[in-house]
Amino acid sequence: MNAPDKLAQLLALTREPFPASRKTHAPGRLHPQVQVPMREVQLTNGEAVTLYDTSGPYTEPSADIDVRRGLPGLRESWIESRGDTEPYTGRERRALDDGTKHEEREAQRIAALRAEAAALQRAPRRAKSGANVSQMHYARKGIITPEMEYVALREHGKREWMAEYLADTERNERLRGNPMGAKIPDIITPEFVRDEVARGRAIIPANINHPEIEPMAIGRNFLVKINANIGNSAVTSSIEEEVEKLVWAIRWGADTVMDLSTGKNIHTTRDWIVRNSPVPIGTVPIYQALEKVGGVAEDLTWEIFRDTLVEQAEQGVDYFTIHAGVRLPFIPMTAKRRTGIVSRGGSILAKWCISHHKENFLYTHFEDICDIMKAYDVSFSLGDGLRPGSGADANDEAQFAELRTLGELTQIAWKHDVQTMIEGPGHVPMHMIQANMEEQLKHCGEAPFYTLGPLTVDISPGYDHISSAIGAAMIGWFGTAMLCYVTPKEHLGLPDRDDVKQGIVAYKIAAHAADIAKGHPGARAWDEALSKARFDFRWQDQFNLSLDPDTAKQFHDETLPADGAKVAHFCSMCGPKFCSMKITQDVRDYTAAQEGMAAKSAEFKAGGGEIYIPLHKA
Amino acid sequence: MNAPDKLAQLLALTREPFPASRKTHAPGRLHPQVQVPMREVQLTNGEAVTLYDTSGPYTEPSADIDVRRGLPGLRESWIESRGDTEPYTGRERRALDDGTKHEEREAQRIAALRAEAAALQRAPRRAKSGANVSQMHYARKGIITPEMEYVALREHGKREWMAEYLADTERNERLRGNPMGAKIPDIITPEFVRDEVARGRAIIPANINHPEIEPMAIGRNFLVKINANIGNSAVTSSIEEEVEKLVWAIRWGADTVMDLSTGKNIHTTRDWIVRNSPVPIGTVPIYQALEKVGGVAEDLTWEIFRDTLVEQAEQGVDYFTIHAGVRLPFIPMTAKRRTGIVSRGGSILAKWCISHHKENFLYTHFEDICDIMKAYDVSFSLGDGLRPGSGADANDEAQFAELRTLGELTQIAWKHDVQTMIEGPGHVPMHMIQANMEEQLKHCGEAPFYTLGPLTVDISPGYDHISSAIGAAMIGWFGTAMLCYVTPKEHLGLPDRDDVKQGIVAYKIAAHAADIAKGHPGARAWDEALSKARFDFRWQDQFNLSLDPDTAKQFHDETLPADGAKVAHFCSMCGPKFCSMKITQDVRDYTAAQEGMAAKSAEFKAGGGEIYIPLHKA
Repeated sequence: MNAPDKLAQLLALTREPFPASRKTHAPGRLHPQVQVPMREVQLTNGEAVTLYDTSGPYTEPSADIDVRRGLPGLRESWIESRGDTEPYTGRERRALDDGTKHEEREAQRIAALRAEAAALQRAPRRAKSGANVSQMHYARKGIITPEMEYVALREHGKREWMAEYLADTERNERLRGNPMGAKIPDIITPEFVRDEVARGRAIIPANINHPEIEPMAIGRNFLVKINANIGNSAVTSSIEEEVEKLVWAIRWGADTVMDLSTGKNIHTTRDWIVRNSPVPIGTVPIYQALEKVGGVAEDLTWEIFRDTLVEQAEQGVDYFTIHAGVRLPFIPMTAKRRTGIVSRGGSILAKWCISHHKENFLYTHFEDICDIMKAYDVSFSLGDGLRPGSGADANDEAQFAELRTLGELTQIAWKHDVQTMIEGPGHVPMHMIQANMEEQLKHCGEAPFYTLGPLTVDISPGYDHISSAIGAAMIGWFGTAMLCYVTPKEHLGLPDRDDVKQGIVAYKIAAHAADIAKGHPGARAWDEALSKARFDFRWQDQFNLSLDPDTAKQFHDETLPADGAKVAHFCSMCGPKFCSMKITQDVRDYTAAQEGMAAKSAEFKAGGGEIYIPLHKA
Repeated sequence: MNAPDKLAQLLALTREPFPASRKTHAPGRLHPQVQVPMREVQLTNGEAVTLYDTSGPYTEPSADIDVRRGLPGLRESWIESRGDTEPYTGRERRALDDGTKHEEREAQRIAALRAEAAALQRAPRRAKSGANVSQMHYARKGIITPEMEYVALREHGKREWMAEYLADTERNERLRGNPMGAKIPDIITPEFVRDEVARGRAIIPANINHPEIEPMAIGRNFLVKINANIGNSAVTSSIEEEVEKLVWAIRWGADTVMDLSTGKNIHTTRDWIVRNSPVPIGTVPIYQALEKVGGVAEDLTWEIFRDTLVEQAEQGVDYFTIHAGVRLPFIPMTAKRRTGIVSRGGSILAKWCISHHKENFLYTHFEDICDIMKAYDVSFSLGDGLRPGSGADANDEAQFAELRTLGELTQIAWKHDVQTMIEGPGHVPMHMIQANMEEQLKHCGEAPFYTLGPLTVDISPGYDHISSAIGAAMIGWFGTAMLCYVTPKEHLGLPDRDDVKQGIVAYKIAAHAADIAKGHPGARAWDEALSKARFDFRWQDQFNLSLDPDTAKQFHDETLPADGAKVAHFCSMCGPKFCSMKITQDVRDYTAAQEGMAAKSAEFKAGGGEIYIPLHKA
C-alpha cells in the first residue's frame, strides 16, 4: 500500500456505537466543567441500563474525530488553571528517537505522515520550578481536583437503574460479597477518591501532557481495571495498525493501554497513540532506551535512560514501568529457575548489571526518576522484572526479594508524592495466588497491585487468555487493582485484532467476576439485568447487555437466524418443547395459584369458616 | 446430501495421531489382560513425556475402525468371566424409541442406515436374578476387578519421565499443593481404587452392556475429569455428525460424554455413539421419556420412564442423570428466583409435579430405579434440577434443599451398592463457590461432585466457556471430581465442532489447574516439561506438549511461518534483540562464572592464600 491508501485505512476507525446504546453524562458539582460519559443501553421493555464506558468519543457518532489532529484536550483548562505548570520548548527531537538505520524510502514515508499530522506535535508543559503536579500531591494537600471528582462520578455510575435489582433483602444478604479486606463505600464521593489517592491506595494516571484522557482510578477500593498491551515490534505491524488497535482495545473495555513498541518509529507511534487516546497510556521506557543504543544492553547509561523518560513524559505517557527492583544481588537467584528471567525489561537490566557488575542504575537513580515523575505527574508502575515465567518458578526467592524492594521504593516514591503501583506475576498455580496478594499488601503499603494474569497452568499455548483469566479473576478478588491482559497469542507471537479482543473480553470477565465477589456495590445488577432479559426471552436485550453484543448475536443467529427467533421462547440448544424457562413460568403461575388458594383458605377461616359467607364482607 | 454421501462423511473420522506421539501401554499385574493405553510424546531432545489419553483407538493408526461395526468389546471377557450376568433377548424395540411422526423419507433413510449398521444391534446382558453387578458391589466384597486395576494404572501413569522435574526439593516444598481435604497417595494402587469405590468416594461408570470402554474413575482423589455434552436437537444436527463429535470430543480430552439428544432418532443416535465410544456415556433419560409422550410433561408416567431406563441400560449407557431431588415442596421455592428453574430435566419434573400436585415419581420410585441400576451397573448422576440459572439465584433455599435430598438419596443408592455422583451448579459468583463444595461434602458423604462450570458472571454470552472455566478451576481445586464443560454457544444455540473443542480445551485447563493446586502427584511435571522446552527454544516440543498442538503451531506460524523460526531464539512477540530468555542464558553463564570465581577464591584461601602455589597441590 502507498501512503494515501494507508491514510484511508487509518481514518477508517471503528466508530459504530454499541447497539441500542447512547452516551449519557454525569455532571460534576464541585467542578461544573466535569461531564463523565457513560453508556446507556435502552432495553426493549422500556428500561435502561447505564454502564461504565471506556470507549471514549469513538462510540459517539456526533464526535468530530481526526486522528491527524488528535482528541480535544479535555483537561487543558483544568491543568492550566492550577497555575503550577508552564509550557516550554521541550527536548529537541532526534532521529534516534524513532530508531536507527532507517531505509531511505521508509524514512520518507514516515516523514510525510509526520508532516500530515503536524498538529500532533504539541509544546509540552512541566511543573514550575520546585512544584509538584501529581494528583497525590494535591490529594495530600486536601485539594479535590476535577480529575478526582471525575473519577468519583465514573466509579459511582448511574445507580438509579439498579434499584429494582438490589431491592431484595434475602438476595442482598445471600449474595453479600467477601471484600477480602477491601473497603468499598456505598457512595463513591470525590472526598473518598482524594483520600484514597492521598494514602497511595489508588492512583489516577494523568500526565499533564496527556490532557485528552478521561480520568480513571486504579485501586483496590474501586472497580477492578484491565490493561491491554499494543505495540509494533521489529518483525511485524505498522503505526497505522496501532492507532486502530487502541480504538479497538478501548471499545471492548481496556481501561489503560500500554504501548510496548520496540524497533522502528516508536516515538512517532507513541505520538499518534497518546494524542488519540482517552485512556491512560503506559510504556516501558527501557525498550526505547535500548533502541537508542542499538540493542546492546551493556551500552545503556543513566543519561540515555533519563533522556528517554523526559522524551516520553513530554509526549504525555501516563505511567512508566520501571524495573528498579532488579537488584544485582537478586540476579543469581534466578540461575536455577526453570525459566530464568522472562520479563523483557528485567532481562535487559540483568544483562546490564552483570556486564558491569554494578547495581541497577534505575535503583541507584530512583530519586532522580521521582523528580521527573512529579514534574509531569507520571505514575510509577514498579516492574516485576523477576516475575516467574512458569509455575515452577512461582513465589520463589528472586520474585519475593524483588517485591520487598518494590515496597522500599514505594516509600521513597511516596516521600516525593509520586503516584505508584506495583506489578505482579506472571505464572502462579491457583493455590499460590493468595500469597502473592498477601506479600504485596504487606510490603507495599496497599499501593495498587497490577498483575499479568497470573497463568495457572503452562500447558495452554494458544489459550493462555483462559488459563490466565482464571488466575486474574482470583487475584482480582483478593485485591489486585488492575489486571494486565493476556491474549491467545501469548508465548507464540504478536496478537492481531481478534486476539486483542479475545484477551480483553476474557479479562473483562475476570475483572467483573472479581467485582462481584468483592461485593462492589451494584456490580451484580448488570448480571441481574441480563439474566432478567434472558428469562423474559428478550434476546435482543440479552445481546445488547453482554460484553460482546456482536458475538452473542452472531452465535445465536448461526442456528436460529430468523428475526422471529429473537422473541421466540426457545433456542436451538433445547428446541421448542424443552425450554426450561418456559416451563418455569408455569411453575410461577402454579405457585401463585397455590398461594392464592392458601390465602383464600386463610381468609375463609378468618371469616368464620362458612362457605360463601365471606363474599359480602368485601 | 443423499445417504451414501452421508456415509462417506461419517467414515471420515478424525484419525490423525497427535504430532510426535505414539500409543504406549501399561500392563496389568493382577489382570494380565489389562493394557492401559497412554500417549507418549517424543521430544526433539531425546526425552519422552507420557500423558493420560482419552482419545481411544481413534488416534492409533493401526486400529481397524468401522463405525458400522463399533469398537472391540475390551471388557467382554472380564464381564462374562465374573459369571454373574446372562445374555437375554432384551426389550422389544419400538418405533416410538426414535420419536414420533417421522416423515416417510426420513424413516426410510434411518432404516437403511440401521440395516447397514446391523452389527451395532447386540443382545444385551443383565445381572442374573438377585445378583448385583456394580463395581461398588465388587469393591465392597473386596474384589479388585480388571476395571479397578485399569483405573489404577491409568491414574498413576508412567511417572518415570517425571523424575527430573520432581527432583528439586526446594521446588517441591515451595510448590506443594493444598489438597483441600483430598487424600491422594503417591502411588495409585488397584487396592486404593477398590477402597475409594467401596466407600463411594469414586465411581467407575461401566455398564456391562458397554464393554467397549477404557475404564476411568471419577473421584476427588483422582485426576479431575471433564465431561463434554453432545447430541442432536429437534432443530439442527444429524446422527452422522454426532459420532464424529464424540471422536472429536475425546480427541481433545473429554473423559466422559453425555448424549443429550432430544427429538428424532435418539435411540439410533445412541446406538451409534455407545458402540463407538471408548469413554463412558451419560444420558438424561427423562428427555427420551418425554419424547415418547409427545412432549407433554403431564403425560409422563413411571412405567414409561422405567421402560426408557431399561431401554438405555440395555444399550450400554454408563450413567443416568436422575432428577429425583426435585421434590414437590421445593418447587414453590423457585418462584421468586431471577431465573426460576433452568435445568431441562428439572423443569420437566416440576411441571409434572405441579400438574398432578404429586410428589416427583423419580423420588417415590427411587429404590425401583436402584434395582435397574445394579442389574447393569449404571451409575447415578443425581441431577440438580433446581440449580441456579443466574448468579442472583446461587446458593438459595431451593438449591440447597435439593442438595440435601440428593444426600439422602445417595445413602439409599449406597444401600443398594449403586455407584453415585452428585450434580452441581451452574451460576455461582466466585466467593460463593466454596460453600457449594462444603455443603456437598457435608450432605453427600464424599460421593463425587460433578458440576456444570460454575459460571462466575452472567454477562458473557459467547464467552461462557471462559466465565465458567474460572469457577470450574476453583471448584475442581476445592474437591469437585468432574467438570461438565460449557461451550461458547451456551445460552445461545447448539455448539458446533469448533465450539466443542473450545469448551473442552477451556475445561482441560480448569481441570489441570485444579490438579496442580491440589498437589496431584506429578501433575505439574507436564507444565515443567513444556516450560523447559519453551526456555530451550524447542518450539516444536512446546507445540507438541500443549493441550492443542495444532492451534499453538498455527498461531506461531501466523507471524513467523519459516521453518527456521522453529529453532530461532526469539518470536515475533519481542523480536530478535529483546528475547528475555536468550538474555537469561547469559545470566546463567554469569552466575556460573561468579560461583566459579567464588569457588576458586575459596579454594585459593583454603590452599593458603599464596598466588600460584596451590597448583602443585592438585
